[in-house]
Amino acid sequence: KLIAILPGDGIGPEVTAEARRVLDALDLGLVFEEAPVGGAGYRASGHPLPDATLALAKRADAVLFGAVGDPEFDSLERALRPEQAILGLRKNLTTFANLRPAKMFAGLEDASTLKPEVANAIDLVIVRELNGDVYFGAKGRGTTDAGLREGHDLMRYDESEVRRIAHVGFQTAAKRRGKLCSVDKANVLETSQLWRDVVIEVAAEYPQIELTHMYVDNAAMQLVRNPGAFDTIVTGNLFGDILSDQASMCVGSIGMLPSASLDAHGKGLYEPIHGSAPDIAGQGKANPCAAILSAAMMLRHSLDASDAADRIEAAVSAALATGARTPDLGGTATTRAMGDAVLAAL
Amino acid sequence: KLIAILPGDGIGPEVTAEARRVLDALDLGLVFEEAPVGGAGYRASGHPLPDATLALAKRADAVLFGAVGDPEFDSLERALRPEQAILGLRKNLTTFANLRPAKMFAGLEDASTLKPEVANAIDLVIVRELNGDVYFGAKGRGTTDAGLREGHDLMRYDESEVRRIAHVGFQTAAKRRGKLCSVDKANVLETSQLWRDVVIEVAAEYPQIELTHMYVDNAAMQLVRNPGAFDTIVTGNLFGDILSDQASMCVGSIGMLPSASLDAHGKGLYEPIHGSAPDIAGQGKANPCAAILSAAMMLRHSLDASDAADRIEAAVSAALATGARTPDLGGTATTRAMGDAVLAAL
Ligand SMILES: CC(C)[C@H](C(=O)O)[C@@H](O)C(=O)O
Ligand SMILES: CC(C)[C@H](C(=O)O)[C@@H](O)C(=O)O
Repeated sequence: KLIAILPGDGIGPEVTAEARRVLDALDLGLVFEEAPVGGAGYRASGHPLPDATLALAKRADAVLFGAVGDPEFDSLERALRPEQAILGLRKNLTTFANLRPAKMFAGLEDASTLKPEVANAIDLVIVRELNGDVYFGAKGRGTTDAGLREGHDLMRYDESEVRRIAHVGFQTAAKRRGKLCSVDKANVLETSQLWRDVVIEVAAEYPQIELTHMYVDNAAMQLVRNPGAFDTIVTGNLFGDILSDQASMCVGSIGMLPSASLDAHGKGLYEPIHGSAPDIAGQGKANPCAAILSAAMMLRHSLDASDAADRIEAAVSAALATGARTPDLGGTATTRAMGDAVLAAL
Repeated sequence: KLIAILPGDGIGPEVTAEARRVLDALDLGLVFEEAPVGGAGYRASGHPLPDATLALAKRADAVLFGAVGDPEFDSLERALRPEQAILGLRKNLTTFANLRPAKMFAGLEDASTLKPEVANAIDLVIVRELNGDVYFGAKGRGTTDAGLREGHDLMRYDESEVRRIAHVGFQTAAKRRGKLCSVDKANVLETSQLWRDVVIEVAAEYPQIELTHMYVDNAAMQLVRNPGAFDTIVTGNLFGDILSDQASMCVGSIGMLPSASLDAHGKGLYEPIHGSAPDIAGQGKANPCAAILSAAMMLRHSLDASDAADRIEAAVSAALATGARTPDLGGTATTRAMGDAVLAAL
């Protein structure tokens, strides 16, 4: 199987290198090919998502992505900024289903700003739609009749887009505690009303799942009040962007959290939820666990290797239990040393 | 001065009654007129915002609003549901600036799920735009060329809408710690790019204010990680809806938090941030403090009576200090008893 590794910017190369070492150690016969993306892509060939990089990502069986974002390119026009690489990959690979688990890791309770009894109860997954919504609707700048500048973006879903992500939501809940919470803003938005109608239709195929609906403002409240009450959340691209970042931070250590973006056939792009952290890039301070756990998700969801995925996840927990901690977790281990600790536990 | 009291549904009547008692006690020569709104409006005259209620709100110098929402009317078409009353009032009164302070109250630290040292540092105001954005853009349902159902809502701002709320943001920050954080999603949305451009232009008139920009997903994270770092946040209608509810819950007791929605001339609508809580309606369990503090905001922002506002706020703190607590704060005081405690402290 061919794995595309797109290290990207900032700490991306450091953390994907550790993930690759862990994958190598498992001896699964994987073939790796690397290509530049984000600011690195722009530097190499004038575009954040170079043609050759996109071609590799399409050809590969799965993509392991580091992080993009580099202040050097902040003043470029939007289409050339590093972040566009990830939007382009999502759209071109049709990875419409973003899975973002948030779970407290034993021993890391201190990292959360939530009280320990609240934080410890967190074990949820956010299933975020990734190919539609106001992200990809018609957008532009213009001038009103009165001569004023304006900006607009169309929020929009059709039933097929909602249906396919709803199925992922229900199926994810079925493998967990059987509770799905669909988040929308149906009291204000027609897009959300369609969303809610379609989710209710799809629910008929999953009678064993307990479905609830929640407005997004209330969901943002409940993630503070009692995040442990959530099992699986399914929501649109924009609300998912906000809520999944909020949920990650509830767990405290965003250096620990992986994510998967899946297409309809199980192919996926895997990335840590943290960003490129240019301030600590190249200093060996980054936590490689999120990238390593992203590799585990890749084994489970795209490469039919759940056992190997379980082994990696257990090794990360075991490494933490030995006291290995990067600076974001209050320790002094380097990126490489943290990778070593995981390898030792494997 | 004429005050319109719109008690609304659920606990709305109970809490506004206590706010009115407090205003009466101050002997400011205010005249009160009441009218039904929300589910109560629909019941009285077939519309959540009856003509007579809207006419009263327009005629009044300020509006004291309770809460709307009644499960009895959940199956009505959207235009007739209780929540539409508040959207209609905001638009018809042109109350474009929503101020939502979130601050820890001494003695209530336990109510927050955040660690005490994190929660205690919270002292922020969210300035939310209330008349535009995806809330009021063209919206509807339709069918795609392929015959699929779709729903859409246009997100949109023009420069005049952004400029007027930006001014409120800067002026609010100027009366506080001088820090303004503008929240948008300019890496994805053209609406946000216009927002950011205009906020930067307006900043030239406020050289003493420290302006920063933050993406909404990061803001949702930072409100968990270190909410004490925020002073004033200015943002659009949708992001403000989500972030202000999140921030409120960080403080723990949403029964304590007031809000103001202001037009360009200082006229305003004042309401507790909590909802109608139909489950506890009519039982004397509701916390009237948010409504009482909304009345204080009304005195300060619309009636040029800051001294009276200060007195009310001090009385609420003093009442809490005597140990008076409604059930949401872990106590047993009734709504009336809590009102009595505030009156006694006045
Ligand atoms: C970089 C940005 C375009 C992206 C998004 O908004 O989707 C990021 O925030 C994410 O969540 O992956
Ligand atoms: C009831 C609803 C329409 C409203 C909103 O979304 O603005 C509410 O959530 C609020 O924040 O006042």
